[in-house]
Amino acid sequence: MKVPMIELEGRLLIFQDLLQKSRIEGALLVQRADTLYYSGTAQNVHVYIPASGKPIVMAYRDFLRAKSESSWEVVQLQGMSKIPKYIKEAGLPIPEIMGLELDVLPVNQFERYRKIFPDVKFVDVSPEVRLQRAVKSKWELARLEESAQIHTLVLEFAKEVLHEGMTEVELEGLLAGKARSLGHGGHVRMRGFDSEFHVGAITSGARAAVSSCFDGAVTGQGVSIAHPTGASMAQIKLGEPIVVDMVTVVHGYQVDQTRILSLGSLSKELREVYEVAKQVEEKIRRALVPGRVAGEVYEEILTWVRENTPYEENFMGYGSSRVRFVGHGVGLDLDELPTISKGAKEVLKPGMVVAIEPKFVFPGFGVVGIEDTVVIVDEEGAKYISSSSRELSIQS
Amino acid sequence: MKVPMIELEGRLLIFQDLLQKSRIEGALLVQRADTLYYSGTAQNVHVYIPASGKPIVMAYRDFLRAKSESSWEVVQLQGMSKIPKYIKEAGLPIPEIMGLELDVLPVNQFERYRKIFPDVKFVDVSPEVRLQRAVKSKWELARLEESAQIHTLVLEFAKEVLHEGMTEVELEGLLAGKARSLGHGGHVRMRGFDSEFHVGAITSGARAAVSSCFDGAVTGQGVSIAHPTGASMAQIKLGEPIVVDMVTVVHGYQVDQTRILSLGSLSKELREVYEVAKQVEEKIRRALVPGRVAGEVYEEILTWVRENTPYEENFMGYGSSRVRFVGHGVGLDLDELPTISKGAKEVLKPGMVVAIEPKFVFPGFGVVGIEDTVVIVDEEGAKYISSSSRELSIQS
Repeated sequence: MKVPMIELEGRLLIFQDLLQKSRIEGALLVQRADTLYYSGTAQNVHVYIPASGKPIVMAYRDFLRAKSESSWEVVQLQGMSKIPKYIKEAGLPIPEIMGLELDVLPVNQFERYRKIFPDVKFVDVSPEVRLQRAVKSKWELARLEESAQIHTLVLEFAKEVLHEGMTEVELEGLLAGKARSLGHGGHVRMRGFDSEFHVGAITSGARAAVSSCFDGAVTGQGVSIAHPTGASMAQIKLGEPIVVDMVTVVHGYQVDQTRILSLGSLSKELREVYEVAKQVEEKIRRALVPGRVAGEVYEEILTWVRENTPYEENFMGYGSSRVRFVGHGVGLDLDELPTISKGAKEVLKPGMVVAIEPKFVFPGFGVVGIEDTVVIVDEEGAKYISSSSRELSIQS
Repeated sequence: MKVPMIELEGRLLIFQDLLQKSRIEGALLVQRADTLYYSGTAQNVHVYIPASGKPIVMAYRDFLRAKSESSWEVVQLQGMSKIPKYIKEAGLPIPEIMGLELDVLPVNQFERYRKIFPDVKFVDVSPEVRLQRAVKSKWELARLEESAQIHTLVLEFAKEVLHEGMTEVELEGLLAGKARSLGHGGHVRMRGFDSEFHVGAITSGARAAVSSCFDGAVTGQGVSIAHPTGASMAQIKLGEPIVVDMVTVVHGYQVDQTRILSLGSLSKELREVYEVAKQVEEKIRRALVPGRVAGEVYEEILTWVRENTPYEENFMGYGSSRVRFVGHGVGLDLDELPTISKGAKEVLKPGMVVAIEPKFVFPGFGVVGIEDTVVIVDEEGAKYISSSSRELSIQS
C-alpha cells in the first residue's frame, strides 16, 4: 500500500515546523523506519529534508522500486559523496546546521558525512523525528487497526492449534506462519542499538518468568545460550499459563499484544491475578489522557498496584529483573515514544499510540498479564486499537 | 550449549595478539555477536579486553543468566559510568588508546564513552574483531555442521509440504516453523547498520527476479511496500522455479543455503542454467584456497562466467541490480568477512567460512542458482559444510 501524497505532505510540514523551531536548516535521514515515514519507500534511501521546500529522496537500492513506491520524486544515488550535488541541483543551500539521527548512526558512517560536508555543523535530529512519529495520523491509525484485526485472527488460530505435548517453538512457528500468510511483514523493526526481536515471547509456565537481555517484563527463555529470548523447546503443560506476547506488523505498522491461554484450568490464584492485571490495564488506559506527563502516569500505576494488590513485588518482573515501564510507543518501530516509564518527561498528546502491558511474574510458576495497543484520544482515556477478546482463553 | 573455557581462552589470546600488533591497549565491546564470541553469553553485557590479562565481563541484563552462561567471571554493571571502576578494580590501567566497534556504535553512545573516559583516545577495533571472527575454530565448525544438518531436515520437510496453490508466505511459515521446532534460534544476526532479515527469501517465478533494498542477488518481492523483501503473498505456480534461500542458526552459528524446488518440471533452459550454476559453484569452491586474495577469486569467477556461459548479464542479478559478490562470510553474523567481492583485499585463510552463491536472474521468469556454506581448508579447495543434496528438487 502506497503512502498517499497528502499523507507525506502532512508529515513534511510538521517536521519542517519542528526543524525551524530547533533552528536546524536541513535533516539527512537514513534509518529505515524514518526514511519509510518521510518518503513512503522502505528501499535503501537517503532522505534530505530542508527546513522549507521539497524533500530529496535519493535511492541507492533498489532505485526503480523506490521510484514506483514513493509519492515524491526519487533520484538515483550513485554514492554518498554525491549527496551535496543533489542538494545543490534542487536549488537548496548546503546548510550550516544539519540534523542527523545521532541516536542510531554508527560513528564510521558519521565520519563519512563529516568528510562529505566539511563545513557543516551536525546536530542530533532524532528527538524531533521521534516526537513527530509518536503522534499518528488518521491514515496511520487505520493501518494499526488492520494489524490489530490480523492479530485477532492469529489468536483465534492459536486456540485451534494449541494441544497438549506441543512445544513452545512449535506453537510460535504455527502462529508466526499464520500471521505471515495474512500479510505480516516478517521483520519487526526496532530503533535501539543492536536490538533483537523474533515474533515475540511465546512462553509458558516457569520459563515465562525467566528474565533475559531483552528490556521487557516477560521475554521467554529462548532455545539456547546464543538465543536467550522468546520461545523455548520445552513442552507446554496442562494447567500452566501460556503467554502469547506477539507483535503483528502489516504495512509497516505494529500492534503489540499479550494474551494468556491455557490447556486446562489455571489455579484460582492465577485467575485472580489475571483479573487484577485487567484492572491495572484499565487504570493505565484511563490515565493516558492528553496533557499528562508519561512518568507521572507510571508512578500513579505503581502506587495503585502497591496500595491495592498484594502483588507489588511481582509487577513487571521480579526482584532485580523488574523493568521500569508499563507501556511503550509502537508504530513503525517497536520502541517508539512515549514510554510510560520512570522519569519519562513526554507530555501525552492525542494520536499517540501505546502498548500498555501490566504483567505479574511469579518465579518458578509463570506469568499472567495482558497487553493491548491503544491510542490516546481525550480526557476519557485512551481507546483500544487491539480488537481481541480480553478474557482468559482456557482450552479443554 | 555453553562455550567451553578453553575455547574462550583461545579466542582471547588471538585477540590480544591482534590488539598488541595494532598498539591498542584495551577494547570495550558491546555488539551482541562480538560479546557472545568473547564472553560466551548473549545477555546484555559490556566486555573489556585488555591487551594482556583477563577480560572483564560486565552484565547489565540479565546478570544472573550471564553469570551462569559465561565461563568467565561476570560482574554486575550498575551503569556505564561504572566501567572505569571495574577496570581499576581488576588491577588494570585505564588505557591511553582504547578500541571500540566504531563500525556499529551509534554516535550518541560513543559520546557517552568519551565522557566516561575523558583522557582516552578511541580507535576502531572492528577490523581486528572481524578478521579474527572470520576464522572459525574446530568448536565453531562443529556448531556450523549441526546447523547444516538441521537445514537439510528443513529442506526434506519442504519437499513434503510443498503443494500447488500454496503461497510463498505459507511455505516460508511452514519451513521457519519446522526450523524453530528443531532448535533454530529465530533472530538472524547481521552487523551492518539497519540490516533487516527475516528467515530468507522463499520466492518463486518472476517475483524471485525482483530486486530490493537487500544487498543480494535474490531478495524476493516481500508482502508490501513497507516490507519489500522475502516471500510474497502470491501463489506458487506449476513449472516455476521456487527459490528456498534460508539461513539456519543453531547455537548462534548460521548456515546460509539456497536450493531450487519446483512443482512439475522446469523448462529445459532453466534446467541447463541450473547445471551451469552448479559448475560455477564448483569453480568458486575450488578457488577458495589459503593465500589467495578474495577480490581476485571474484574476478576469476566473473571472467569464467563471461567466457564460458551465455548468461553473463543474468549472473548475480540483472542490469543495475547486479551485486558485486559471489560469496560472503557467515558465522555468528550473516555478513561476516571475507566477502568474495569486487576489490576485496582479504587474504583467504584455513578456517574461514563462506556462503558461496552463484545465481542467475531472468526478469519476468525467475531465478535458478545454488548456495552452500563451505570452509576453507587447503589447496584442494573449500569443503562443504552444507549437507543437503545439490540436485534440483522436482515434485510431481
